[in-house]
Amino acid sequence: MPSPTDPRARLHDPEARGFASDNYAGIHPEILEAIAAANGGHQVSYGADVYSARLQEVFREHFGSGASAYPVFNGTGANVVALQAMTERWDAVICAESAHIHVDECGAPEKVGGLKLLPVPTPLGKLTPELVGLQAWGYGDQHRAQPKVVSITQSTELGTCYTVEEIAAITEHAHERGMLVHLDGARIANAAASLDVPLRAFTTDVGVDVLSFGGTKNGLMLGECVVVLNPSAVRGVEFLRKSAMQLASKMRFVSAQFDALLSGDLWLRNAGHANAMARRLEAAVRDIPGVSVQRPVQANSVFVVLPPAATERLQKQYPFYVWDEQTGEVRWMTSFDTTEQDIDAFAAAVAAEMGPA
Amino acid sequence: MPSPTDPRARLHDPEARGFASDNYAGIHPEILEAIAAANGGHQVSYGADVYSARLQEVFREHFGSGASAYPVFNGTGANVVALQAMTERWDAVICAESAHIHVDECGAPEKVGGLKLLPVPTPLGKLTPELVGLQAWGYGDQHRAQPKVVSITQSTELGTCYTVEEIAAITEHAHERGMLVHLDGARIANAAASLDVPLRAFTTDVGVDVLSFGGTKNGLMLGECVVVLNPSAVRGVEFLRKSAMQLASKMRFVSAQFDALLSGDLWLRNAGHANAMARRLEAAVRDIPGVSVQRPVQANSVFVVLPPAATERLQKQYPFYVWDEQTGEVRWMTSFDTTEQDIDAFAAAVAAEMGPA
Amino acid sequence: MPSPTDPRARLHDPEARGFASDNYAGIHPEILEAIAAANGGHQVSYGADVYSARLQEVFREHFGSGASAYPVFNGTGANVVALQAMTERWDAVICAESAHIHVDECGAPEKVGGLKLLPVPTPLGKLTPELVGLQAWGYGDQHRAQPKVVSITQSTELGTCYTVEEIAAITEHAHERGMLVHLDGARIANAAASLDVPLRAFTTDVGVDVLSFGGTKNGLMLGECVVVLNPSAVRGVEFLRKSAMQLASKMRFVSAQFDALLSGDLWLRNAGHANAMARRLEAAVRDIPGVSVQRPVQANSVFVVLPPAATERLQKQYPFYVWDEQTGEVRWMTSFDTTEQDIDAFAAAVAAEMGPA
Amino acid sequence: MPSPTDPRARLHDPEARGFASDNYAGIHPEILEAIAAANGGHQVSYGADVYSARLQEVFREHFGSGASAYPVFNGTGANVVALQAMTERWDAVICAESAHIHVDECGAPEKVGGLKLLPVPTPLGKLTPELVGLQAWGYGDQHRAQPKVVSITQSTELGTCYTVEEIAAITEHAHERGMLVHLDGARIANAAASLDVPLRAFTTDVGVDVLSFGGTKNGLMLGECVVVLNPSAVRGVEFLRKSAMQLASKMRFVSAQFDALLSGDLWLRNAGHANAMARRLEAAVRDIPGVSVQRPVQANSVFVVLPPAATERLQKQYPFYVWDEQTGEVRWMTSFDTTEQDIDAFAAAVAAEMGPA
Repeated sequence: MPSPTDPRARLHDPEARGFASDNYAGIHPEILEAIAAANGGHQVSYGADVYSARLQEVFREHFGSGASAYPVFNGTGANVVALQAMTERWDAVICAESAHIHVDECGAPEKVGGLKLLPVPTPLGKLTPELVGLQAWGYGDQHRAQPKVVSITQSTELGTCYTVEEIAAITEHAHERGMLVHLDGARIANAAASLDVPLRAFTTDVGVDVLSFGGTKNGLMLGECVVVLNPSAVRGVEFLRKSAMQLASKMRFVSAQFDALLSGDLWLRNAGHANAMARRLEAAVRDIPGVSVQRPVQANSVFVVLPPAATERLQKQYPFYVWDEQTGEVRWMTSFDTTEQDIDAFAAAVAAEMGPA
Repeated sequence: MPSPTDPRARLHDPEARGFASDNYAGIHPEILEAIAAANGGHQVSYGADVYSARLQEVFREHFGSGASAYPVFNGTGANVVALQAMTERWDAVICAESAHIHVDECGAPEKVGGLKLLPVPTPLGKLTPELVGLQAWGYGDQHRAQPKVVSITQSTELGTCYTVEEIAAITEHAHERGMLVHLDGARIANAAASLDVPLRAFTTDVGVDVLSFGGTKNGLMLGECVVVLNPSAVRGVEFLRKSAMQLASKMRFVSAQFDALLSGDLWLRNAGHANAMARRLEAAVRDIPGVSVQRPVQANSVFVVLPPAATERLQKQYPFYVWDEQTGEVRWMTSFDTTEQDIDAFAAAVAAEMGPA
Repeated sequence: MPSPTDPRARLHDPEARGFASDNYAGIHPEILEAIAAANGGHQVSYGADVYSARLQEVFREHFGSGASAYPVFNGTGANVVALQAMTERWDAVICAESAHIHVDECGAPEKVGGLKLLPVPTPLGKLTPELVGLQAWGYGDQHRAQPKVVSITQSTELGTCYTVEEIAAITEHAHERGMLVHLDGARIANAAASLDVPLRAFTTDVGVDVLSFGGTKNGLMLGECVVVLNPSAVRGVEFLRKSAMQLASKMRFVSAQFDALLSGDLWLRNAGHANAMARRLEAAVRDIPGVSVQRPVQANSVFVVLPPAATERLQKQYPFYVWDEQTGEVRWMTSFDTTEQDIDAFAAAVAAEMGPA
Repeated sequence: MPSPTDPRARLHDPEARGFASDNYAGIHPEILEAIAAANGGHQVSYGADVYSARLQEVFREHFGSGASAYPVFNGTGANVVALQAMTERWDAVICAESAHIHVDECGAPEKVGGLKLLPVPTPLGKLTPELVGLQAWGYGDQHRAQPKVVSITQSTELGTCYTVEEIAAITEHAHERGMLVHLDGARIANAAASLDVPLRAFTTDVGVDVLSFGGTKNGLMLGECVVVLNPSAVRGVEFLRKSAMQLASKMRFVSAQFDALLSGDLWLRNAGHANAMARRLEAAVRDIPGVSVQRPVQANSVFVVLPPAATERLQKQYPFYVWDEQTGEVRWMTSFDTTEQDIDAFAAAVAAEMGPA
């Protein structure tokens, strides 16, 4: 480890934390240890290493014996590879208007994936069979990109969770119409922790076909996986992963992180903790006059409307993002390393900001 | 660090090494320390962290004050982002027929980058002004994708190096015709070590416009950089990096690796050592009857023709790749962690295989 | 002309007409004559012929001296070439949710054009500055495809027209934010006839940058033009036309049709007639009980809600399309060759269908 | 027909002809008659018209009962739609380095089709099993775009023809390796005329899977067809035709042209005549000192090397193209409307240019 006098050593304060995003956090110590354990010697590159082999077993324990996992670099990569593998060139993907694939990926699905998105406005970031039905039409019409995949996000970009039944209703609706279901699980662990069910309960067991399994936001240095639950739903994942520039040469170091995350309960500890911190924050601020919590806190984020001036002052102490400039809505996000003290101090700062002098 | 009894601990032999590829090697210890040093606390994601800021300074020390570096995940990603940033939608890229972008990227430049490649056969993996001229025509003709970029690889996919003068001749030729020059530097450090010149001597100083700077093959866990030397040669690098799915959220951990690699002489030590090991191997085998070294050993690989039966038997002890099934050519590659003992033992095995007892 | 006994002669009834689409109609006789007049001898291919040269003058008479026209094959082609020419690879296009580019082009903008669409729900198929503002944000944010073009359709897919002032408001709004405006003019002539203003009044004169000028739906055999009104708004149109597979080799025959359409008043006669027929139809049916006209008839289509059973029976006599299965809305469309007798007979059939026995 | 005083009438000399390209020629009178015969009344758009229905029968007479034809606008469109329909997103296409798809389509296969090309140098524009073998490798390797289609051009871009046996050897080689064969038949009729065999003899009967059937260069105003001979070789042709912007709304006028071309012997008369004119030209010039015919004249073009000064002077009288600036090679091309007098006068001009008075 670097000595304190090493000029290349730490440049930042390892105790500084805020509420901007779960990807502001670093690497969980157990994950870093797993990287170190996988180091040394030579291992076959591009996925034919022993850590990537073990990864398959680990994912099958969670998702069933038909599951296979393809490590990639990031969530956008996982989404695009998954969606390409599920579609023909002329197909389209139905998603919520707030979906990360529509809003936050600089057009990667369209521009590099050649995917057509059919976004649908939703109240809480959650699709329903009825909302899917608004776009699931025109089959056989050569003028219409064929709606083939429904992509849902769990937990959603808005901090909400689908119930098991809600996902089951969507997959049933989709499958009846010949569509497939993709689940963007950038924060899938937070959803499992929130629902208090195994990962497979709202995926494999209710018919989700393919998912993007997130690691980065739950304590990994970097890494996501395309996890195929229904092998007949995809074609060419390995080729598409490479052409999408998502194939790691030293893949052992991505796989070993996931092994460490998923072979024990680290994934659940991290996510459950982050969720608990969000609930603690919501409880601490919901009664502060002038703070308006916007929607149910079902994962690791709290959305509130604040007076813009208060937001600006608070941001000087604690980094966080404005979600909607028009309404003054802001997002506060917790992570695996958020402490109770962090929450309490921040809530106090909010209260001080809002309260009477 | 994981205890010996940890079931998630090391699965492999950290002393086993072969000659298959420099990306079979792991992480250099100093790099792993840098990752650890960058851990803890929160840092702004997507590149606005302190390590990524320092990275700019580090690259400017090597490449001049006009350089800017954009960390990405892998070499294919660096190449595609760089080439997209240098071209309009209707442009084409001239490259050697052996170029990684043509041969080994599963069509990523064409399929996700929308790039048209104009490959040219070359004897040693090296373009020349004359060879470039075979494709640099048709300007203004709407039927022809417009040749806009010459992409060279240094050191090449065939283990050779361009001299400083050879690159200067290409950049001069290209610039005179309104073209730009991209350098795929997946093994750029090996080239600098081989030529015994600073990195800028065969890049900035001779007019290379943009390069893909490789880290993974030189001791990083993962990471490459698009390095822009000529700011007027590119547009939209940051957007293209995101849409190409190459934007790391916890970028500090990619940048910190490069800081450790480049702020001292680690990059040169690693590459110089790998090169020396390749030369040692070539010296040890070149006089063995039946072993035919194919081309100059100017970086960290040795290409030889062997009898296929000998190849098969040797591969059982030491992993390496057949380069050309037709001719029996194989590639032996060294890396930062190759030892003199590794070389000597392997050379002895080759000799034993080929020679009479 | 073919003799009556020619086995290759006419296979259809040249007097049968319906209300399905203006592209069910054939070629206006003056257009067919123009094709014949351009025939014979050799002309330079790919646009360097005398008819394409004259085309430039013809378009400049209508749109001003800065206009240039690029003939293409069809409307989807015109839209994609125009939008590619107006954008960088990382840009996005704001459009109405009902826009042809979003709904009816099988994903061509995304899949072959690499364009990201940002569709906005609208009541009458018309954007407003406020609606544009819902998507015109996130400039400089690398995660967001940059909203660069507002694409409006005139007359709209819903048979309505923007007023001159409405378009002026959009272009002003767009230009203030650094955006450009594209007008999909598949039925632009119908709009000019409806508004009773010159073509340039709602295009050049109010700041539209580029338009897709439709010919096929107004009496051409086939042909549309990308018309650039603001030369600084585009790059590489000719290359993009070719790579988008929209470059006609015998272009003289596309250009000659447009010359015939636009050098006199044929464009206006055809469109004005079609509009008048739509108004006649609307007048004839609006008071029939059970027929509910859905929106203002401002071009050459009438949208009504009918009982599904009535629709089915009427379709056996007169082809037309159901627009919305859910609501029972149907579209009746007129064309340059619709006659007053056609309208009156159809309206009578509707009345008979709906009326008391 | 336009009167002589019509200001919109003919702008060009219908008797002027040159040797630049077969697409400098106009529309054969019988084709124009067919367009006129298909005019009038309404027909279902986008291919559901009676002329497009008859087209299927016409193509089946030529290519067998399994054939189906998809009219498109141009040859680049036909090629890209065909190749997309034959490939998965990760596949590659092997072609001659001189292939139109590689050289003359502004990158459309790569840029809009997402296709990876693997070009191979050939002596006469013709691939062989051995040449195909140079690129047909790497199956299952995720780094290599998978070679899936061999695309040959018949007659070739260099005026040569494959024999029936040569094509059979390629298709056998391809099929044995799991590849498919596409034939770019922009000048397929010239090949049939040259070989003096039915169209199916070198296509259906020897295992070609899909072809691009050219009409424009053989007397049509515009139009090509994707003709699927092996239905299991393609997926989604109709959707791909639309997303590739190749779906004509008034398709009856494209189909009717093909009906007229192919239901009788017009296709063969036109092509046979053009071929004969090329042979006549070759015979007339081959013995002129200083004129060096470059390769066998097997279709409707003659390639010769001329002194550049002679080329420049001749081009002032007769338009034709320089094929290779370096070598002074030029291409003379004949068409359906070339006359014996045209040939004789041109040959005399060449002789006068080259010879002593």
